[in-house]
Amino acid sequence: MTSISNKTEKFLEEGSWIRKMFEQGIALKKEFGENNIYDLSLGNPILSPPKEFFLNLSKIANEKNPSNHRYMPNAGLDETKAAIASNLNKSTTTNINKENIVITCGTGGALNVALKTLIDPNDQVIIFSPYFVEYKYYIDNHSGKTIIIGHDENYLPNFQQLDSAINKKTKVILINSPNNPTGVLYKKETLTKIGNLIRQKQKQFNSEIFILSDEPYRKIVFDNLETPNIFEFHDQSIIATSHSKDLGIPGERIGFIATNPLYSQSNKLINGMTFWNRALGFVNAPALMQRVIAMIQDSAVDIKSYEQKRDFLYSSLKKIGYSVIKPEGAFYMFPKSPIPDDVKYSEMLQKNKVLVVPGVGFGAPGHFRIAYCTTDEIIEKSIEAFKKTFDNIKR
Amino acid sequence: MTSISNKTEKFLEEGSWIRKMFEQGIALKKEFGENNIYDLSLGNPILSPPKEFFLNLSKIANEKNPSNHRYMPNAGLDETKAAIASNLNKSTTTNINKENIVITCGTGGALNVALKTLIDPNDQVIIFSPYFVEYKYYIDNHSGKTIIIGHDENYLPNFQQLDSAINKKTKVILINSPNNPTGVLYKKETLTKIGNLIRQKQKQFNSEIFILSDEPYRKIVFDNLETPNIFEFHDQSIIATSHSKDLGIPGERIGFIATNPLYSQSNKLINGMTFWNRALGFVNAPALMQRVIAMIQDSAVDIKSYEQKRDFLYSSLKKIGYSVIKPEGAFYMFPKSPIPDDVKYSEMLQKNKVLVVPGVGFGAPGHFRIAYCTTDEIIEKSIEAFKKTFDNIKR
Repeated sequence: MTSISNKTEKFLEEGSWIRKMFEQGIALKKEFGENNIYDLSLGNPILSPPKEFFLNLSKIANEKNPSNHRYMPNAGLDETKAAIASNLNKSTTTNINKENIVITCGTGGALNVALKTLIDPNDQVIIFSPYFVEYKYYIDNHSGKTIIIGHDENYLPNFQQLDSAINKKTKVILINSPNNPTGVLYKKETLTKIGNLIRQKQKQFNSEIFILSDEPYRKIVFDNLETPNIFEFHDQSIIATSHSKDLGIPGERIGFIATNPLYSQSNKLINGMTFWNRALGFVNAPALMQRVIAMIQDSAVDIKSYEQKRDFLYSSLKKIGYSVIKPEGAFYMFPKSPIPDDVKYSEMLQKNKVLVVPGVGFGAPGHFRIAYCTTDEIIEKSIEAFKKTFDNIKR
Repeated sequence: MTSISNKTEKFLEEGSWIRKMFEQGIALKKEFGENNIYDLSLGNPILSPPKEFFLNLSKIANEKNPSNHRYMPNAGLDETKAAIASNLNKSTTTNINKENIVITCGTGGALNVALKTLIDPNDQVIIFSPYFVEYKYYIDNHSGKTIIIGHDENYLPNFQQLDSAINKKTKVILINSPNNPTGVLYKKETLTKIGNLIRQKQKQFNSEIFILSDEPYRKIVFDNLETPNIFEFHDQSIIATSHSKDLGIPGERIGFIATNPLYSQSNKLINGMTFWNRALGFVNAPALMQRVIAMIQDSAVDIKSYEQKRDFLYSSLKKIGYSVIKPEGAFYMFPKSPIPDDVKYSEMLQKNKVLVVPGVGFGAPGHFRIAYCTTDEIIEKSIEAFKKTFDNIKR
């Protein structure tokens, strides 16, 4: 006789090691003071939302208009959907319109709504390691089966593995670019290869295989690069994203789904997603934030500042001797652990007052993730600890 | 080969008749003008949020504080949880504290998170007709099995049916008081009977059976009545609610779960619910609204005004000849359809420019639901149509 379900019990148990690490981190902060522990474990961005965010938020809040806070259609406000479509069209030649948009409670909402709409029980969803840990829960939520594909030396998909993994039960290929935890950007060449392979497999199995593109870091790219629009690489493609990172408002839970206007059954997808936005319990994305983001689709946090943090951290780690791929986007770095046991190495870093997340949490043991969406001061101070821990290893 | 999942296809098909009615309603509004169609079909409250809502919203928005919009612990802000607990304690002698609270994306989020935490596949969840239509989806989302129990002449649970329905697979009894669609309030007598029956069955089956109390209309009660606190009737009980109705902000998706401090495994429930708030994709309730509701737990819309609307509508319908129970809370009324076919009668009302929802949508054919959370003018104008439609029936 147990109060909670068996699955809840199992998942809580599986996640207990990472909770333990977090608790140790909290204990350290209490012992040594918040500013003497260099917390690089959380993707909770420190950069301020752009000034346009605060201006429009104040404006709408000060309207004191009751109807601003009422229900609206489950897919969201027309004006917001139109503003999103218009902004997306700047990055693509496809003609996205408001009928292609469902506004969601962040990317978490977007991915769950999209997966629920697409998959029947035991349908397979392919993800690539290293992966965002929540993907496995999201897929399981809707009785899908997670298939994990490895990476090449550049942390791009292992195409040989991908080729052999796709079968008649494959319904979705979930990609994440710019990537959490590596910072890698999937460029045109990679997306073209994925699209070509999928179409070959669709023919072979007489099936439809969707690319679900999780891209909350879409606007956070460096070196004058751009995130390609997935719609140009495969008709059966869906964007799931949020303003958590590009506007710096992750607590507000505001994001969206966009379907490909080139896909003939786009309308059917939108009907399904609108239904599930309601029936999964989200109902609609928060009303006030829908009104705010409609006004500021072209705004973003200071992305140059993330690029400077990346440059400093990357060159510092390389100088110490770490092996790490230079990120082209997002605000994460994913160095190799100098010892095979990444949990142990993360604990060694913790002893030197730096908090990171072991790679095993992303399905890629032997690495650790640094989230550098924090102050320059904390990043600078962490370097000494990274050096000290590295140098202390008996090689 | 179909784009969307079989379940999505099936649910969209099943719901198509109600969508058709809504579309006819929209077409009527276009033809005759918004103000000449008396829309009593939607629970989208017209009353303004209290002035304290706008004051605090402006105050917080004008702070222009970046950290107001960041991630927080998945269960929500401590200050908000404490304010909620303190307000709940005014209605109970149990000692609720902030560790009993998870802040959610409305009641939709609260119910899904609670159900996911409690039920294993094929566990049974009992609901009472007439019921809120989303319950069946929410239970199915987590692979539970819905068991529907009928009502007595006062639209309270049929206890004979309930007694025989509870078995060793019964995990949750989901109640909704004040009720949508009937407006009926479960008083102490009813809740005591439910609690006693459950404890007898728990002993019999050596199981735990939870009361999940869905109460977004908790504060909307009339005739100086109060909604009893469920915690006093059964230890294994959980409150799921929102501020959509009592603050008039349903678009903002802000609500909460409270667990019973008298239940020995309350902490385990909260850990599970905090995990699922994250892993179902909600992540956390909208940050800004968490800050607002912390300041205004004692505020509410003008409930007296709903009571006046009820009084007018109830006496008018009775005078015409409708058979209807006098609601004690919420803002719905659930008259018997004068002809057995409630869909047909709703269509007849629609022809006379009144929009209602047929009872079959709530598992109670032979009735229709009126949502009177609209202007006095629309309610007054609808009466003539209710009379005309009633009088035209050949008896």
